[in-house]
Amino acid sequence: MPHINLKTNTTITPYQEAELKTKFGKAIECFSGKTEAWLMISLEDNRRIWFKGDNSQNSAMIEIQLLGHASNKEYDNMTETVCDIVNSLLDIPKDRIYIKYEECEHWGWNGSNF
Amino acid sequence: MPHINLKTNTTITPYQEAELKTKFGKAIECFSGKTEAWLMISLEDNRRIWFKGDNSQNSAMIEIQLLGHASNKEYDNMTETVCDIVNSLLDIPKDRIYIKYEECEHWGWNGSNF
Amino acid sequence: MPHINLKTNTTITPYQEAELKTKFGKAIECFSGKTEAWLMISLEDNRRIWFKGDNSQNSAMIEIQLLGHASNKEYDNMTETVCDIVNSLLDIPKDRIYIKYEECEHWGWNGSNF
Repeated sequence: MPHINLKTNTTITPYQEAELKTKFGKAIECFSGKTEAWLMISLEDNRRIWFKGDNSQNSAMIEIQLLGHASNKEYDNMTETVCDIVNSLLDIPKDRIYIKYEECEHWGWNGSNF
Repeated sequence: MPHINLKTNTTITPYQEAELKTKFGKAIECFSGKTEAWLMISLEDNRRIWFKGDNSQNSAMIEIQLLGHASNKEYDNMTETVCDIVNSLLDIPKDRIYIKYEECEHWGWNGSNF
Repeated sequence: MPHINLKTNTTITPYQEAELKTKFGKAIECFSGKTEAWLMISLEDNRRIWFKGDNSQNSAMIEIQLLGHASNKEYDNMTETVCDIVNSLLDIPKDRIYIKYEECEHWGWNGSNF
């Protein structure tokens, strides 16, 4: 039941989109029990994003939502992995990438809640 | 003070948009004391969304934010109702619809907080 | 580590965007220790937004995410300040502006978590 939403001010090509999909699908395994089989990914490019008062460089806001909880070690692994992916694929400096996590208690799918 | 944000990879026509508005305005009554009189709705169509590693089928990510708390029964009713609406109006399979709920403590409107 | 996301159904001109950036960069100081030096801003205009069953007037949904906690007084100051900014710059009635706050526990940047 995870969801990854990536917003960036740069352009994501179809090739990059397919690569992000595949690599995020693997990265989600940083969280115990989570796999691509339950992962939703939303990609938003060409957004108007400012970071540190500047919009001239590439930046990304990534929001990751999970049902339930994860450990600090899992979050550390995920942040390192996702920053590597986004930096290498989209040429976004790692120090211009935020990853905000949310632990969710109520999550619906297919007409009922988990 | 609720907010419903719907993102989908399919197109929402003006007719469908008006229907979603009306039906979500009624559905929000699944939560005690909530009505369309305080509901904000954001609709985003033609998004790049992948679910279970696949973007060839219609999918939707729905985020519902409430001030305060709701009961499990209210969440169950809301999920069932919203999945029915989105499935029938937008032709999105119910098993490709996620509904993520967030209970909020701090919410501003009209210059001050509730 | 704050993030401000503004969605509106009206258009944001480049001039208004630059003004929002500058004014939000100052407003974030309502929260102790927060400055523009760590602020990310995302602006989304021309969105399909309904409020109180109506999409004929300007409306805005603003989401503000913080690492950690803030006081009620800080939230009150921020809501008043942000409503003033958005009302005067984008001509959105204050009673059609929602500001939803989220206090976050896990937040990544530059390959690791805060």
